Parts: sequence; structure tokens; C-alpha cells
Amino acid sequence: MSRAPLIDGLQYANWSEGIFRQMRQGGLDAVHVTITYHETFRETVLNIERWNRWFERFPELILHGRSAADIRLAQETGRTAIFFGAQNPSCIEDDIGLVQILHTLGLRFMQLSYNNQSLLASGCYEAEDTGLTRMGRQVVAEMNRVGLVVDMSHSGDRSTLEAIEHSGRPIAITHANAKSWHPALRNKPDAVLRALGQSGGMLGVSTYPHHLRDGSACTLQDFCDMIARTADITGPQNIGIGSDLCQDQPDSIVEWMRVGRWTKGMDYGEGSAEAPGFPAPVTWHSDNRDLAGFAEGLRKAGLSQPEIDGVMGGNWARFYAESFGPLDARTPIRRAAE
Amino acid sequence: MSRAPLIDGLQYANWSEGIFRQMRQGGLDAVHVTITYHETFRETVLNIERWNRWFERFPELILHGRSAADIRLAQETGRTAIFFGAQNPSCIEDDIGLVQILHTLGLRFMQLSYNNQSLLASGCYEAEDTGLTRMGRQVVAEMNRVGLVVDMSHSGDRSTLEAIEHSGRPIAITHANAKSWHPALRNKPDAVLRALGQSGGMLGVSTYPHHLRDGSACTLQDFCDMIARTADITGPQNIGIGSDLCQDQPDSIVEWMRVGRWTKGMDYGEGSAEAPGFPAPVTWHSDNRDLAGFAEGLRKAGLSQPEIDGVMGGNWARFYAESFGPLDARTPIRRAAE
Repeated sequence: MSRAPLIDGLQYANWSEGIFRQMRQGGLDAVHVTITYHETFRETVLNIERWNRWFERFPELILHGRSAADIRLAQETGRTAIFFGAQNPSCIEDDIGLVQILHTLGLRFMQLSYNNQSLLASGCYEAEDTGLTRMGRQVVAEMNRVGLVVDMSHSGDRSTLEAIEHSGRPIAITHANAKSWHPALRNKPDAVLRALGQSGGMLGVSTYPHHLRDGSACTLQDFCDMIARTADITGPQNIGIGSDLCQDQPDSIVEWMRVGRWTKGMDYGEGSAEAPGFPAPVTWHSDNRDLAGFAEGLRKAGLSQPEIDGVMGGNWARFYAESFGPLDARTPIRRAAE
Repeated sequence: MSRAPLIDGLQYANWSEGIFRQMRQGGLDAVHVTITYHETFRETVLNIERWNRWFERFPELILHGRSAADIRLAQETGRTAIFFGAQNPSCIEDDIGLVQILHTLGLRFMQLSYNNQSLLASGCYEAEDTGLTRMGRQVVAEMNRVGLVVDMSHSGDRSTLEAIEHSGRPIAITHANAKSWHPALRNKPDAVLRALGQSGGMLGVSTYPHHLRDGSACTLQDFCDMIARTADITGPQNIGIGSDLCQDQPDSIVEWMRVGRWTKGMDYGEGSAEAPGFPAPVTWHSDNRDLAGFAEGLRKAGLSQPEIDGVMGGNWARFYAESFGPLDARTPIRRAAE
């Protein structure tokens, strides 16, 4: 790459031309975007169709990212590469064949569960985490084969550790922070972060206020200091940004994320009855023009320039290059799939 | 290409390892296979999943063809390239966005109608052919844009002529013969064949007995003589094989082709109550090992060696190369889409 890339490992904004222009103003080379939560396969395809329209309408701003080479293409042509991800496996329904279908349509990340038990794994809000299911093990092997990254951001810790162990390729936790820094249910304990890093996996650190110490009042420097301490656990090559930026979204969207169609009641997730909506964003990350400013905070936190370049995007770029292609049959996978 | 390719422009067999091995024994470099008739989008995706399993199980025999370069790859690696097609537009339902989705999943041909009126065009069995519908014109332009070939094999003549006129890229009639030779409802009059050839489109000639003079008793030489006379109308560069081989299929399949879910009654299509099933195949084309033998019949019919090479596959290879990629925005299309 001509310069270190700037990559955000997870966003779910209310996409618009304005946001795409802010991506360009902020110098964002690539971003992993959530395209589906609780949607069925057909509904997920409708969401892909919507992205296809955006790619057709704004070819000077964005392009559909399928491989790490598209990050370089985005840099060379002054655009942002958009990589698709699913926050829940409802998009594959009960059909393992949809793993390859969705990968062909561009999906590059899929969470095995979202807060609740899924067909594949337990979510972090379940009272008991029973680990990977029978189908979960089969689907992880299929995801390994085609090049669809296992994402465990909203899964339980046992399920996450079993995914790290069972997966033949490194996995990701695209958006979460260290639980030792802020004990949110969605943040991850050191044991998970250590196993993730040792296996070559990636952590994306989140600026979503519920994941931050002091919430919306968290400072950029406190956040960057947390990154530096977390890098000591994961290794500095295994950490990037995964901001979970939910820009311009109405509160109906956070309700859809939490409730989907799985209950007729209400679930407040990380919020509460008193504060059911999206939390106010931190002042230092309200849109994509703020992202490049994180580098200075990382410098003050003691990271070296190569480490800063890695956290700001180089580590994701390397991980994308290793993860999105089909498993080469001539190269043994890291661990044999069971 | 190292040698002229051997290509069949339409088959719908009851696919099996045995048939794939016969393709190799017959030296078939590429084939356009029907993957869907009256199926919905989701059902069509299930059919693609089944093909994905075959590609995974038999990588030494077949590969998924996406561009004309895959014909060369198939030749160089001793395999058959499989190109997907739909005989009816039910797979896009009422959603123009599914045109690009299905092209991304590998679809390269789609008929605008199958015997009956569709959302896009009239079928050849309707009493009145009203030509392209409003949606039909939009979908043809979208197919032009992404590189999905318009196929009018089962459409009415007016619809076919309007598709030729409206399409910004050449279209195909992948499996039909000259009506002047055998006056079947599915065969095409000279006016259609002439307009097709003049626009750079392709006719695939069919060995399905209902399309043949004398039916199952038709001789290879009579068939090849028809090709030679039809080439005088379309031009010898605009004709290839499109056998409509339905090998190893049970009669329940021909009923599905004809009846789908559009009637609770029975429709015999080209058959009859007395002969409702598949007709007996011609003796000179019962499987893919027979195909190469057509060349000798074409030679006796008076075709030159370059013309024979074209009909046996070269013409389809050129058409595939021109048709399957996205429309280059820098190159004006042949006719402006309305």
C-alpha cells in the first residue's frame, strides 16, 4: 500500500450520500458494514439489492469490497471499499448451503449469535452458554472453506472460546472492548482476548457508549489508553478499530437490533426502560471525519508508529487478505475441523 | 483457443456423475444448463446450492462457468464449464433487483417467458402476444447492464422481435429450430431468425424430437441440412447447438416444465394425452458422447471447416465473450434503451 490504510471494522449507519461523502472527507479506505440483523435470507438479499443501488448511484464515492485488493483499489481511486457483514446467522436460516451463496453475494463476516441462542452458538445474554451446536461446528467449517469470517462480538464467552478452538482460520470480534476496563456484558474478558490474539484473530475496539467507561463522557485518551493496554493482551497486530458507529439511526433501529421478531415484549439490551434509545455518541466520534484523529491518541498512549498504523487499518488489511479467499486445499488449515 | 471449442447451448439433464463423465468422454468444453423453470427466487437458490455441491464433489470433471475465459480454462484442464440459465423469469419474482443478484450467483441466460404470459413478455402458447410489458422493458435494460442474456426460446414471435429491437445487446434463442423446416409452435419463422441474425444474436438448434421433422425418426443428416439452410438466414456466425437434451429425466419433470404451479389441470405442451411424457430421443443424440459426431453431418451438408467450427462451439464462445460482462459505460450500447 502507498500509505497505511484507514479501516473501520464495524459500522451500521443509516447510509446516505452524506455519510459516504463524510467517509471520503475522513479518508476512510474501507469499512465493514452490517447489512443484516434478524432478517431472513430473502430479506438480506433485499438489503444487498439496496447496496447494489448505492454502488450504482455513487461509483465515485464507494465500491463493493470483496477481497483485500479492493482496499488498495479504493485507495488508488479515492473511494471507500464497503465489506458486508451479518450480525446474526438468521440470514442462512437452517441451510448450510446459504453460507457459500451469501459469500458469493459478498458477505465476509457473520456472527454466530446475537445476544440470544442461535442455531449455531449461544449469545452473551443467555443464562447458560452451551458452546457451539452441532450445526454450529458444521457451519464454522463451511465458513472456513469459503472465506466467511466467524465474528463472535455478541456471543457468550464459552461459545467464543470454542469458536476460536474449532475454527480452522482465525476469527474476529469485530466490535467490543476489554471487560477489565469497563465491565459491560458485551465486553470481553482477558482470557477471551488472549486466546483470540494467540490464534491470530482480530479485536475491533468500539466507541459505542455502552461499551465505554463513563459512557458518552468517555474521553478519546481514556479510550486510546485502553487500546494500548488491550494490545498488551491480544498483541498489537491483532487489534483494530470496530467502532460500532450507528450514525443517523432512529431509535426504532436499536429496538429492531434488540428485539427483532423473537419476542412480543420489549428487551432493552444494553439500554434501560429509562433510556431505551441510542446513547448520545462520544463527541470525538460522531461521524467518519473523526476517525483519523484517533492516531494522535494512540501516540500519546505510547504506541509506536508501526503499531499505530496497524491499529488504524493495517491489521485489518492483513486479516482481510488472509481471510476472504477460499481455503486452499493444498494448505492444511491451522486446526483440523472436527 | 488451442482448438475450436465444443459447446452445447442448452441442456436440462437429470445431472449425475455419470452424465458429467459422458461430457468428458464426448469432449464437451462448455454447456448452458437450465437451473430453474417455475421456481421462486429461494427455490432457484436451492438449485444453485445443489450445483455448488456438484462443483465441490466433482472438481476434476466440471467447473462453474462465469465468463468466456472459463471455456478456455475448461479446455486447458480437461473439464466442462457449466453456465447457468433460467427458462422462465419466475426466479426474479416481481423484483428487478434480483437480476443483478442472480447474475452475481452465476446466471447468464434468462428467458423472458415460458409458453405463458409472464410479467415481462408473452409466451408462444398464448392466443395473443402483446409484446414486452412495461416491466419487461425495464428488466431487459437491467439484463443488458449486468450481462444477463435475454433468451426468447419459449416466447411468442412479437415478443421475440420486440426483445431483439429493444435489447441493447444481442439476444439468444438458445433452443429452437426453423419453422419452415418443421412447423412446430416452438420453432421460429424466418422473419424472427433473420432479425435475430442481423442483430448479432444466436440461435441454438435443438435435437428435442418435438422440434424435429419426423420427430424421433429424424436423421442426423436431415438435421444438419436444416442447420445449413438456417445458417443462410441467420448467417453462419449466428448459429450453434442448443440441443435441449433432457437426459435421464423422469416424465414428472416434463410435467413440471409444462404445468409448474400455474394450473390445477394438465397441459400437455408439445405432447398429448396419448403421449404425455418425454419423447424417445433420436438415436444419434442420446447423450453427450454423440455431440462431436454432428461435425461430419455438417460437412456433408456443405459447411466449410471454419463454419463447422463455429456451429460446434466457436460461435457460442464468441457470443459468451461479448455477453456475460457488465456493459462498459464507455461503450455506447447498440441501441439506446428506452
